[in-house]
Amino acid sequence: MTLSPSMQTAAQLASRYALELRGDGAAAVAGVSTLAGARPEQLAFLANPRYRAQLAQTKAGIVVMRREDSDDYAGTVLLAEDPYSAFARISAQFEVIEALEPGIHPQTAVDPSAAIDPSAQIGPFVSIGPRSCVEAGAVIGAGCAIGPDCVVGAGSTLGPRVTLVKRVRLGKRVLIHPGAVLGADGFGLAMDGGRWMKVPQLGGVCIGDDCEIGANTTIDRGAIDDTVLEEDVRLDNQIQIGHNAHIGAHTAMAGCSAVAGSARIGRYCLIGGGAGVLGHLELCDRVIVTAMTLVTHSIREPGEYSSGTPLMDNRSWRRSAARFRQLDKLARRLGGLPPADDKDQE
Amino acid sequence: MTLSPSMQTAAQLASRYALELRGDGAAAVAGVSTLAGARPEQLAFLANPRYRAQLAQTKAGIVVMRREDSDDYAGTVLLAEDPYSAFARISAQFEVIEALEPGIHPQTAVDPSAAIDPSAQIGPFVSIGPRSCVEAGAVIGAGCAIGPDCVVGAGSTLGPRVTLVKRVRLGKRVLIHPGAVLGADGFGLAMDGGRWMKVPQLGGVCIGDDCEIGANTTIDRGAIDDTVLEEDVRLDNQIQIGHNAHIGAHTAMAGCSAVAGSARIGRYCLIGGGAGVLGHLELCDRVIVTAMTLVTHSIREPGEYSSGTPLMDNRSWRRSAARFRQLDKLARRLGGLPPADDKDQE
Amino acid sequence: MTLSPSMQTAAQLASRYALELRGDGAAAVAGVSTLAGARPEQLAFLANPRYRAQLAQTKAGIVVMRREDSDDYAGTVLLAEDPYSAFARISAQFEVIEALEPGIHPQTAVDPSAAIDPSAQIGPFVSIGPRSCVEAGAVIGAGCAIGPDCVVGAGSTLGPRVTLVKRVRLGKRVLIHPGAVLGADGFGLAMDGGRWMKVPQLGGVCIGDDCEIGANTTIDRGAIDDTVLEEDVRLDNQIQIGHNAHIGAHTAMAGCSAVAGSARIGRYCLIGGGAGVLGHLELCDRVIVTAMTLVTHSIREPGEYSSGTPLMDNRSWRRSAARFRQLDKLARRLGGLPPADDKDQE
Repeated sequence: MTLSPSMQTAAQLASRYALELRGDGAAAVAGVSTLAGARPEQLAFLANPRYRAQLAQTKAGIVVMRREDSDDYAGTVLLAEDPYSAFARISAQFEVIEALEPGIHPQTAVDPSAAIDPSAQIGPFVSIGPRSCVEAGAVIGAGCAIGPDCVVGAGSTLGPRVTLVKRVRLGKRVLIHPGAVLGADGFGLAMDGGRWMKVPQLGGVCIGDDCEIGANTTIDRGAIDDTVLEEDVRLDNQIQIGHNAHIGAHTAMAGCSAVAGSARIGRYCLIGGGAGVLGHLELCDRVIVTAMTLVTHSIREPGEYSSGTPLMDNRSWRRSAARFRQLDKLARRLGGLPPADDKDQE
Repeated sequence: MTLSPSMQTAAQLASRYALELRGDGAAAVAGVSTLAGARPEQLAFLANPRYRAQLAQTKAGIVVMRREDSDDYAGTVLLAEDPYSAFARISAQFEVIEALEPGIHPQTAVDPSAAIDPSAQIGPFVSIGPRSCVEAGAVIGAGCAIGPDCVVGAGSTLGPRVTLVKRVRLGKRVLIHPGAVLGADGFGLAMDGGRWMKVPQLGGVCIGDDCEIGANTTIDRGAIDDTVLEEDVRLDNQIQIGHNAHIGAHTAMAGCSAVAGSARIGRYCLIGGGAGVLGHLELCDRVIVTAMTLVTHSIREPGEYSSGTPLMDNRSWRRSAARFRQLDKLARRLGGLPPADDKDQE
Repeated sequence: MTLSPSMQTAAQLASRYALELRGDGAAAVAGVSTLAGARPEQLAFLANPRYRAQLAQTKAGIVVMRREDSDDYAGTVLLAEDPYSAFARISAQFEVIEALEPGIHPQTAVDPSAAIDPSAQIGPFVSIGPRSCVEAGAVIGAGCAIGPDCVVGAGSTLGPRVTLVKRVRLGKRVLIHPGAVLGADGFGLAMDGGRWMKVPQLGGVCIGDDCEIGANTTIDRGAIDDTVLEEDVRLDNQIQIGHNAHIGAHTAMAGCSAVAGSARIGRYCLIGGGAGVLGHLELCDRVIVTAMTLVTHSIREPGEYSSGTPLMDNRSWRRSAARFRQLDKLARRLGGLPPADDKDQE
């Protein structure tokens, strides 16, 4: 069963979302699109200046944009200070949502000691271990494996094939995408007589309300204390969070980034794709780390941080890279600079 | 049930694959191996010059190689301009393929509105959602989860535990390895009053004919339009493709590489392992990006591109790295160079 | 059914683990914790100097530490040369282990030709293919997919949703975490008339005794020979091992690192998080590669190796990065250095 959208006029949208209307208030749309692809019965938006040139050609019936971008545009406009978030809000009503079907699918393996709220939906081929609990309105997708002592908070949704290994507690309205693994053993090893000895991982994972966790992302459980995501943390796909890491509220991390064990990330941080944070470090609130940067020491000041070298054609890069090897010699030859100090690298 | 290979003579292989034979046409092989490991009843190949020294010791009954590598080799040879592709073709006939077993395994959960071709094979613990379609000769491995509105094209194969979340359309002869997730929500967020607001992801994923997608690779569905792979795109394991990315035909990407949202990669590109392409960029056809390079601006000219620094022993590296911090000071001190311009970095 | 821990006195622990006791031998603990979080009935440890300051405040009933750290501490101490491994050993006895439940869950799909030891435990929604074998005491978690011709050695444990694709042989006491995929096709392609041709992947995967493989890690099977992990190799989460790679005994790799095809890593190597090793290279024993380093040539000497640039605030980094482009010009202008040789980069 699906809920269908219907037509909306520019005037209705302006009123509903408190946006200023310019142009034809009777212009009606039945969906959203990009500037380049929109048909007259669709709404589009302009937020990223990269796409401003597409405004001249768009066939969109309504465009959401900033006032300063709208001067040369003759069509129907909804003015927004933040066109992207206005668009997000509008487009949500055109989303077709599959209706919840409460109950437990017959092909499941639920431990008798597990507590499943009758309003929750448990898909096929799901296993739920002893003492675990699925709260009201939660949805567990096909093929999820939930181990012992887990909690899926009210209104949370697990996509297909999510694993909660053990002692994983999700807050309310948490959304986890397919293939994610929460609560696997942290990577704790001690060398003992020439062989690795496994360090028991006795903690759990605690995920705050409104967090989102991407496909195939992994969050290990803590060695002693829990691994923690505070509320409204947003993780993209294929992110790795080591044991006992702590991620502050409202922090967002892009795909393939990683946080090593016991690192502590502040609130409202933005971690770029493929970036890494070494273990036991602390990042204060509102730190931005650019893509593929390696964070090798704690950061105490908000701001943007980077490492790496710029993109070059390979021939030029090879020359620069060869000179990088000679950098200390080069600096010494030039003279007048402070010595290259190991401590400088932490 | 399996199909067994049998012995092949050098003369038969030369004729079948249009290769020039040198040596004993009656030499017969029953399988393939490496130069170093081959027994007399096996065929080996020499393509990578790294392994030329192994030619002197090989016990292989037949060796496929280039003419210029064959002068000092006394054994039976099949000459090929491209020994690797000749070997690939020959070795395919020694592959033991499990025969298709059409039909739907009894332990499955298939929505009544899904259309499954009678010649398709649906493994155990597979779920298939409303309005999805599995075409002739397709194979769905154990534990796959296919959501609503998906198409698995004729002759396509999904390994075990693949997820197609929603609105994922696969062309013909697509091969997807275990754990891959296609069609999860793109990472679309807008900051709204100090909290993240989710941007609906209304698009789908469209995969062209003959694409191959590696284990645990993730391809998000588009925010508005589809995320697209054109035909014959080859993705290795653990690759991340962001929403609305577009990958041109015949492009190959090595393991752990990533393409951020709305980036557009041309045809016949080669993306090295662990490399990243930032969002909204365009790469023209025939671009090569070396391993672990970060692409930070669009590329308009075919060729090879790189970033990063060379491998060094840690002590030397620390000195060079410390001097990297001083580079601008060093350049200013030397003088005579154009200023370091922010725009230079895009 | 679970096995419960009980109280232990400092004297008992000192005797059992051969540690020197200082303080109150009758001090008793019922579990472990961190220095910062411990209650009086818990044992904590001090190994990493970062946490030494916490010693003054800890409420732990017993602390495990080095002699040289213990001088100013008045509480009960167990002295250890390696406090971390001593702690690991002690904490293991406080771990609550779910008891094994031998037998095959009724909701499984096991091929009649597979051999399952009666002492093994096969969870729900597991599929096991033809000719595969699960040895004594092995545990196969919920939703695992095991293809044809695999062996799960005695005492090995597969977490939920692990895939062994085909020809994967695990030694004894191997531990594999959820979502890992072993034995998928290696990424073997040959360009043939403008299209990719798939190179058959005829080998398998061979995993030595006591290996541990992290969540969502992928290990491809070999093209001809096997991909090999020797005994006691420890892989963290989201690692990618290409076809025909060979990893020496006791090597440990941190999260998100990768080894490309046919590379050979020695014994007792430590590969940092996000690091990469290119194909066909060889690393000797006892090589340490720091996080996010790219290994571009073979390493013949034990020691520590690195690439990359240090973390900087973005504004400073942009200046250094811009100068990196000019490095060859800068070096030529300064003069007196050997030319930047391409071979230098291998």
